Amino acid sequence: MSENAFTAMSKRDLLTMIGRTAGASAMYMAMSSLGEAHASTFKGPIKLDGDAKGASVLILGAGVAGMVAALELRRAGYKVQVLEYNNRVGGRSWTLRGGDSFTELGGATQHCEFAAGNYINPGPWRIPYHHHGLMHYCTELGVTLEPFMQVNTNAYLHSTKAFDGVPQRFRHINADYFGHVGELLAKAVNKNALDDTVTKGDAETLLSSLRSWGALDKDYRYVKGAASSDRRGWEKNPGGGLTAEPIASDPMSLETVLRSGLWNGVSAGFGMDHQSAIFQPVGGMDQVAKGFEREVGDLVRLNSKVVAIEQADKGVTVTYEDTKTGVRQQAKADWCLCTIPLSVLSQIEMNVGDAMANAIRAVPYEPGFKVGLEFKRRFWEQDEQIFGGITYTDLPNSQISYPSSRYGAKGPATLLGGYTFGAFAYEFTSLPPAERVARAVEWGSKIHPQYKDEFLNGIAVGWHRVPWTQGCFGGWTDESRAEHYKNLCQIDGRILLAGEHASYVPAWQEGGITSSLDAIGRLHQRVMAG
Amino acid sequence: MSENAFTAMSKRDLLTMIGRTAGASAMYMAMSSLGEAHASTFKGPIKLDGDAKGASVLILGAGVAGMVAALELRRAGYKVQVLEYNNRVGGRSWTLRGGDSFTELGGATQHCEFAAGNYINPGPWRIPYHHHGLMHYCTELGVTLEPFMQVNTNAYLHSTKAFDGVPQRFRHINADYFGHVGELLAKAVNKNALDDTVTKGDAETLLSSLRSWGALDKDYRYVKGAASSDRRGWEKNPGGGLTAEPIASDPMSLETVLRSGLWNGVSAGFGMDHQSAIFQPVGGMDQVAKGFEREVGDLVRLNSKVVAIEQADKGVTVTYEDTKTGVRQQAKADWCLCTIPLSVLSQIEMNVGDAMANAIRAVPYEPGFKVGLEFKRRFWEQDEQIFGGITYTDLPNSQISYPSSRYGAKGPATLLGGYTFGAFAYEFTSLPPAERVARAVEWGSKIHPQYKDEFLNGIAVGWHRVPWTQGCFGGWTDESRAEHYKNLCQIDGRILLAGEHASYVPAWQEGGITSSLDAIGRLHQRVMAG
Repeated sequence: MSENAFTAMSKRDLLTMIGRTAGASAMYMAMSSLGEAHASTFKGPIKLDGDAKGASVLILGAGVAGMVAALELRRAGYKVQVLEYNNRVGGRSWTLRGGDSFTELGGATQHCEFAAGNYINPGPWRIPYHHHGLMHYCTELGVTLEPFMQVNTNAYLHSTKAFDGVPQRFRHINADYFGHVGELLAKAVNKNALDDTVTKGDAETLLSSLRSWGALDKDYRYVKGAASSDRRGWEKNPGGGLTAEPIASDPMSLETVLRSGLWNGVSAGFGMDHQSAIFQPVGGMDQVAKGFEREVGDLVRLNSKVVAIEQADKGVTVTYEDTKTGVRQQAKADWCLCTIPLSVLSQIEMNVGDAMANAIRAVPYEPGFKVGLEFKRRFWEQDEQIFGGITYTDLPNSQISYPSSRYGAKGPATLLGGYTFGAFAYEFTSLPPAERVARAVEWGSKIHPQYKDEFLNGIAVGWHRVPWTQGCFGGWTDESRAEHYKNLCQIDGRILLAGEHASYVPAWQEGGITSSLDAIGRLHQRVMAG
Repeated sequence: MSENAFTAMSKRDLLTMIGRTAGASAMYMAMSSLGEAHASTFKGPIKLDGDAKGASVLILGAGVAGMVAALELRRAGYKVQVLEYNNRVGGRSWTLRGGDSFTELGGATQHCEFAAGNYINPGPWRIPYHHHGLMHYCTELGVTLEPFMQVNTNAYLHSTKAFDGVPQRFRHINADYFGHVGELLAKAVNKNALDDTVTKGDAETLLSSLRSWGALDKDYRYVKGAASSDRRGWEKNPGGGLTAEPIASDPMSLETVLRSGLWNGVSAGFGMDHQSAIFQPVGGMDQVAKGFEREVGDLVRLNSKVVAIEQADKGVTVTYEDTKTGVRQQAKADWCLCTIPLSVLSQIEMNVGDAMANAIRAVPYEPGFKVGLEFKRRFWEQDEQIFGGITYTDLPNSQISYPSSRYGAKGPATLLGGYTFGAFAYEFTSLPPAERVARAVEWGSKIHPQYKDEFLNGIAVGWHRVPWTQGCFGGWTDESRAEHYKNLCQIDGRILLAGEHASYVPAWQEGGITSSLDAIGRLHQRVMAG
């Protein structure tokens, strides 16, 4: 990539480049500073007190944002109907299983061939404990959660440019980075180099803390021995009987760790969105959508493509096309809550003011892809003792995430063979689906040689090629947010918007849920005031 | 505690004192340096090739060490019988549920009153991924595993001497300790204080790594803002709609973190035995024992108290008492594999040489207790968003571990309300069981005020008061191990020993399993050679 190309990069491109070259944690840091990755404001169940007097709301989109609104508005006495483009609810909260198929922009259709019980979540796949809104609805809707293994110290950090391309166990890089940081800081303290910053008493406490935290020896050195091996793992594990005595392993030097660049992966689990406890629904993320469907499925009309949204003083008329018959129909209501992704909404006729219209056009959508791969067996567990968690790589697939369920199961299993945003996602998904899968297998085989023998089939979702969203999530910048965010969220006459794009938690279901709750809270105030 | 009392403390006492005053991680470090906590040597399924020609083995004890031997020896063609003191298999791999009762030394009987589905594991409760022997048998025996939540950043670190006794979220102490360590080291590097240790090029990489790892700003400072709040949590969480903008939280100062002593808890998940991935069997640890029982239960005679072990040139005769009838009987075999805890074995008549006899007497057993508490509801989840994980405290209960299963469930739930080793365990279990439970409730209420309203019932197991083990695990020191370990493990005539006490993985089931596999491997060689 030339210097010019680099300077011309958008923030979104930059995000993926950081992700690919420096690991997901650096990308996460960058996302944070760009305002892209955060937690939630949910404060408990919404209370919409007062008589709605039969006011009606037409909700566009049966993703989690639309369905949470349907649930709470009906509860509060509103007449609710929901239009959904797809032949299923859930939107991007989507799970692919054997027998499923989907067609992307350009016409390529993929058929999922996974064995029974296996799946991949092309969209959201994790639920941090502090996504309180989503956690609340999971409890209320009876969606069973299980831990998502975000950090597995026995998974790998991999760089094509370090260790001759041989993947390194996370625990080796992690323990050695911590150990050397501890030793260096202890050295500086003992040289009195920080006397202007740390009092003598605190310095003693600091040294003592560094010894236990960094697994240092009595002289504050990070060296081969029981302390370091207990962090990074032993050369020969301790055991029982007469063959039991352990052999310590050799820590890497500071230079080796730093020059490998793999230290980047060490903070992969540090961000709030990735801290333990973090969950996934048992059986696939679409269990969230199915939970909502049990409550409000009767309000949803599937296969309904919105083509025009027209408001007047007293209400809203939405024209939609039945995607099976091509017949156009209209739905009317006093209010319209629209959760359609801005990437699609910007192509739909809608009479709102300039402020909202400009906001809708101001938010580009991230390109991104996920590849799900099925293998004959869980070789990562059986051969390499990796039970869940994520391997990070500087190869274009960025990461390999091992399943956080059915540990130890025999038979075929799926893993996430690639998950990448940004410019490369366009290049990658310009390939035919079979070729994308072949490349993901090729990349993964650099880390797991078993890939080639064990591979069964795969599926590759490029979000910017998905007709009903045309992008992964709304790509706000600090600048666009300052100019357009409030205009996007404010009620325009009889129309208001919700979805992850109308939140400070972009790309997460929690953004959709909290934006929807905020929107219907304001709508209810307006109705009560009226 | 007086100075004299302190200097008279044994290493075991020291372990608990470190645990109580400095948190479990310091205790773990100390355990490591005393040779108490390690991983495993298991290298794959044992192969006992060759014809055993009907040789017989009498196994004493149906814990995991005894049962793995029964399984593999029968497979290899041996005639096997197992004598077990209790009315169940499993030994210390034990789960207490509603309806269970047990009687301790001194005669107090406790009845477990937990609701259906609730349980507590008084003994082992975790399975690290690298306990390869146990993991192998879990797979083979169909024992379903689920993640054990070792680290939960939303759980608490608590000291009665810091923050006026108010518990602090793990993520606050953790992020702020990391941030300040990163800032201090960056400062030292920028002062050129480490120029003799780190090259100029490496120093630049180090600075760059510290910025992302420690969540530092562009000037390498750990300050209030998006970067630090994304690690420690926000003052006001980001959300959706017009109420969405987040407010950053205030990091604590270096002095506050250091002087609180709570930095000790930060490394709670760092040791190999506590690193992710770490598991528990679904439904209770005794599912491991039940798995073995399905395979070898027919070989086990329950309610059989061994009173004498006598070997001769050609075989071994074991006298045992039926604990129901008091009738004494004898069992004979060519060989005897004894897995009885040394604390009990040292009280049983057995004709072995001085070397083994001295080794048996040389290993004192750790006192220790666990308290299981049942509450009306999961207030830790519902009120405090703590889903699994461990709170560490300097109160005598040392830790509170929240259940790593059935997240979000309604109704009564159990947690581990205390887990402590050492001298205090004697003091604590000198109290009547009801009083122990009352104290655990009192201590816990300092951290969770809900304790008092929500408490239902509890149960308190003091391992040194359990008749069939009289201690928690074998307490080796470097000195005793050097002098006696090989003598303990070597075959003495027709008798050989196995169990966690005959391993470098004391207190863990993996020690029992690997010691047993090592012992039967050597026994088989002897039989083949004979």
